[in-house]
Amino acid sequence: MLRIDIISGVPELLQSPLQHSIIGRAREKQLVDIYIHDLRKYSTDKHNKIDDYPYGGGAGMVLSAQPIFSCIEKLKNEREYDEIIFTAPDGELFAQSNANELSIKENIIILCGHYKGVDQRVRDELITREFSIGDYVLSGGELPALVMTDALVRLLPGALGDSESALTDSFQEDLLEAPIYTRPSEFKGLRVPDILLSGDHKKIEKWRSDKAIERTRQRRPDLYKNFKKKN
Amino acid sequence: MLRIDIISGVPELLQSPLQHSIIGRAREKQLVDIYIHDLRKYSTDKHNKIDDYPYGGGAGMVLSAQPIFSCIEKLKNEREYDEIIFTAPDGELFAQSNANELSIKENIIILCGHYKGVDQRVRDELITREFSIGDYVLSGGELPALVMTDALVRLLPGALGDSESALTDSFQEDLLEAPIYTRPSEFKGLRVPDILLSGDHKKIEKWRSDKAIERTRQRRPDLYKNFKKKN
Repeated sequence: MLRIDIISGVPELLQSPLQHSIIGRAREKQLVDIYIHDLRKYSTDKHNKIDDYPYGGGAGMVLSAQPIFSCIEKLKNEREYDEIIFTAPDGELFAQSNANELSIKENIIILCGHYKGVDQRVRDELITREFSIGDYVLSGGELPALVMTDALVRLLPGALGDSESALTDSFQEDLLEAPIYTRPSEFKGLRVPDILLSGDHKKIEKWRSDKAIERTRQRRPDLYKNFKKKN
Repeated sequence: MLRIDIISGVPELLQSPLQHSIIGRAREKQLVDIYIHDLRKYSTDKHNKIDDYPYGGGAGMVLSAQPIFSCIEKLKNEREYDEIIFTAPDGELFAQSNANELSIKENIIILCGHYKGVDQRVRDELITREFSIGDYVLSGGELPALVMTDALVRLLPGALGDSESALTDSFQEDLLEAPIYTRPSEFKGLRVPDILLSGDHKKIEKWRSDKAIERTRQRRPDLYKNFKKKN
């Protein structure tokens, strides 16, 4: 079973997204074990301080090495970890292929960055992978840790109600999805395309495939190029 | 003041990240108003159903048009919205420039996608912007809505304790940040680079700039290309 240890200076922020929807149900079904570690509990400072000013000056606070080393070394003494991930804006861009690959691991640590960053010695000595979830700056690594956890957990067998669902997702074949409609067939004068009501499944598949390719070409020429290469 | 209305079928998932850290403090300081709307409350179905099977078959459930139209039309009757955003894997890739641009708006709606998608008529008729936070699939649009909210809110004047901090972030100049260190100067035999302890601020600035460029060139050749173009 996949085990994810999330280390954070603001563990209370992580609570609700881990309790509901797909992640919450996967935990109930014991498809995944998720543990949250409060960095402050590992600080040897008498005020449980976990950050300090950057050497050389500049704005913002930096997460100190000591509490992180203490927490990760404790976990590593208890079991072997496949990856120790740090969420960082300058990490590798997290993509679906990384989610696929990580979802079959056994033990993963995710260290949430916070404040201005983390002492570089942590990254040099402990971290095995650094991921950014996108080219934007967030106030901490907690949301990226949740995003990665969600992307992984929904791939675990049994996590989705309907196992076919994950395979037809966007990105699994470098294609976006076709437009999708549900009842009623007419709403405020807006009608569902006739083909989807036709019951002709071969035509519907063709229409969906055409629309998926068209949408990908228009919206994401970069993905379309990959798709063309492979097909 | 910026007002963000988040519409979701799993509103309870959104709670903790909106209550802590930068977003929580920005709300307390009344720098931003964030409202969560429970899609189920807008359903006219007697069981408050908000989703249904896709026309034409296939796995997964689709968010129905009716509750979303009811919720967004009610909000639009109350005030004018600058953007009505939908979180979708096939949307425009969200980037720092979008956060900058959106952070100076007044009223924004973020509709969280969920299940297999949303009835296309919602996207055609109501949505003004579609954003994806990255090339991976998540179980819903709630985490993307939180990510965008965090990226926006931290840019609001007064949201960060130290206003200089946001300006020196990664991405604001197409450069990643230089390595950063804090006390102690030696930890487990690992020393902070001497230059950062030198007190020579001109040399430190030069070192940081060199390292930022080097790290960007190695890790993100795509950003480095943009940086070279502008410099």
